[in-house]
Amino acid sequence: MTAADTPVEHLHVRRHNLSLVLRLLANQGPRSRAGIAGVTGLTRATVSSLTAELIELGLVRELGLDADHRRGRPATLLELDGAHVVTIGVELNVGYISILARDLGAREVFQRHVVVDVDECRTPGEVIALLGKEIVAAIAAIESDGRRASGITVAVPGVADADRGEVRFAPNLGWRRVPLLAELQKLIGDGITLGLDNEANLGALAEYRAGALAGTPNLVYILAERGVGCGLVVDGKLLRGASGAAGEIGHTTVQPVDGMPCGCGAHGCWETLIGLPALLRRTLPDTAEGLLARHELDLPEQVAAVIRAVEAGDEAARRGLDEFAHWVGLGIANLIDLFDPDAVILAGTLHDLGELIMPAVRASVAANSLPDSLEHCRLDVSTLGFSAAALGGAIHAAERLFVDPPLAARS
Amino acid sequence: MTAADTPVEHLHVRRHNLSLVLRLLANQGPRSRAGIAGVTGLTRATVSSLTAELIELGLVRELGLDADHRRGRPATLLELDGAHVVTIGVELNVGYISILARDLGAREVFQRHVVVDVDECRTPGEVIALLGKEIVAAIAAIESDGRRASGITVAVPGVADADRGEVRFAPNLGWRRVPLLAELQKLIGDGITLGLDNEANLGALAEYRAGALAGTPNLVYILAERGVGCGLVVDGKLLRGASGAAGEIGHTTVQPVDGMPCGCGAHGCWETLIGLPALLRRTLPDTAEGLLARHELDLPEQVAAVIRAVEAGDEAARRGLDEFAHWVGLGIANLIDLFDPDAVILAGTLHDLGELIMPAVRASVAANSLPDSLEHCRLDVSTLGFSAAALGGAIHAAERLFVDPPLAARS
Repeated sequence: MTAADTPVEHLHVRRHNLSLVLRLLANQGPRSRAGIAGVTGLTRATVSSLTAELIELGLVRELGLDADHRRGRPATLLELDGAHVVTIGVELNVGYISILARDLGAREVFQRHVVVDVDECRTPGEVIALLGKEIVAAIAAIESDGRRASGITVAVPGVADADRGEVRFAPNLGWRRVPLLAELQKLIGDGITLGLDNEANLGALAEYRAGALAGTPNLVYILAERGVGCGLVVDGKLLRGASGAAGEIGHTTVQPVDGMPCGCGAHGCWETLIGLPALLRRTLPDTAEGLLARHELDLPEQVAAVIRAVEAGDEAARRGLDEFAHWVGLGIANLIDLFDPDAVILAGTLHDLGELIMPAVRASVAANSLPDSLEHCRLDVSTLGFSAAALGGAIHAAERLFVDPPLAARS
Repeated sequence: MTAADTPVEHLHVRRHNLSLVLRLLANQGPRSRAGIAGVTGLTRATVSSLTAELIELGLVRELGLDADHRRGRPATLLELDGAHVVTIGVELNVGYISILARDLGAREVFQRHVVVDVDECRTPGEVIALLGKEIVAAIAAIESDGRRASGITVAVPGVADADRGEVRFAPNLGWRRVPLLAELQKLIGDGITLGLDNEANLGALAEYRAGALAGTPNLVYILAERGVGCGLVVDGKLLRGASGAAGEIGHTTVQPVDGMPCGCGAHGCWETLIGLPALLRRTLPDTAEGLLARHELDLPEQVAAVIRAVEAGDEAARRGLDEFAHWVGLGIANLIDLFDPDAVILAGTLHDLGELIMPAVRASVAANSLPDSLEHCRLDVSTLGFSAAALGGAIHAAERLFVDPPLAARS
């Protein structure tokens, strides 16, 4: 219940109108300047000035004459320039760095996945230096084709303070209050705006915008890797919480009695039951510690060892995997009872294990959730795979551009 | 990213403008018709027509001449008529019916609390008949003073399908798919619009609009009675979920091994650990079953037995209460990790137990939640007490009037 007569600054209005015109062209296709004026209620002069700036920014281009134009001289049509400006998503994780770039037409133009031996990068500074090197190389590769990189969002496996650009707590990286964006900005220069968010939030955003269930308004995205997190889309918006830390499902207690210690300091967290170490120890007790110590192995390769054992008929591994699936389902049931979502999407190791665990997961969900909420809720593995967080980062950076188009300018 | 040029129906526009003018007067105080036209951008003729309808509906009244008016003839000021129209909140619960009415000026004009022996009302039809009788009597009492009752919202201890007016699942009432509003409407007549929601959602709404922390944008409201539920306010909006069933925290599993059976059919739900039966059995094992069987006792009286025992120095009751508080804190910690709220507000039995449990609850929350999310989160008992859900119902019904003022007409 706010009034409509709040004063707003001129610059704010200009930014708002640039965003309005850009979104109009992106969502409704080519229009003439007169057509834009007609729909938005802005004057012709204002529309001319706005579109000139959007063309200068490389976000809009002239398409040619409007063939349908019936009266007077034909008007020039404008459209979103989907090919020129590119945004970048970067996922920093325990064992890898993943980089993905998309143009505004949603075409992927760059992808790179680097396995990082965390034991060789012991300090945040060393990890950030490596990350900066990879980003600078990615920008150079992207811009060698005449494109312009205009926004980066970094996904991290922990609690991110987006406003301060700070990783507040990432237990699996061993990070606490690391000013990631300030340090990265020094390495890549001031020209590109940086954003930060939790990997599961960005994975959920990627699912909501570009996944198999894109547009589903109430969506829970569960990302199990070494740690476990979730991204929550409620009525089409990411639920971030009061300080941006919402979705820390991995640290909710589901085994309060005799629970195992967790990286967060508590015991019996869901992560201690369905994180990668728990998966390996439960299914491959003899080789788990060795596998966990091999940092040169990517997460999918570690999970592949489990899959091979089960598919080769290892009965103990099968039983361990069923127990694992039981705990997965129990946590999912809790999320269904709390959020009553349209869909739950499983990613990370849960994606890789797929149909090896889904029947047992579904049985556990059914036994532990309220039937009415379960009835209308889909439960699927992600179709986006391990690059979802990086994809979400690129989408997140593009959404910033749509809200504030002048960010596309490289200083 | 939707367009601004969607066609809308004339009636929809009329309703929208009635709502706009009513909210303007409610939020910003008295205005002249010309003043309303200036702020809203509507024509003088439209404003005259809209305000005439609002006056006819009893929602707006003429206040007198504008003393500050400087040019031309003085204009008549209009203001919200806060005293004429009244909305009613009704809470139906396991052992009681609570009715509360407020006028639009937020003054409480009626309250009644009836202890109901559920054993004497075995069928939903019998309960609904009693409920209807109480509501009809309340309306008569309210309208005997010249006020008009124009909207009722009923709070139920279970999953409510607001669109269908149906109680989908209320395990502690033993109800499944009961068409409550259709049956009630038959008993009270067609003149008054009925709404339906879960008791914890309406309690959360009451806290958000009228509680000690009113306006706090991210708020978790936990209501422990015989059952346990929560209402979640996220960025100032109630989180309802895909089918209106969000917030069923009472049925999330927190004791997966050796958990007790729950009314929902599963085991180890939070409700089995912190619902009223668990509280009584843990603190007063010898007398719990007797107390639980005494349906003539109101919930506060049953809780009072626990308080008396602890305050009289009963060591076993004290230990039981500390265990109870531990489980309360564990579930709260899970909610803090998931929602990252600004505040958690405790109601129902937790409100009554208050400082007898809060130190142990706080210790358990601290041991089980992420420190970063806990840091900025307040944890308080409700100041609204047992009438919160009924108050929330009255507020809910008033909010419907503000969105759709013609609902105030009694046919």
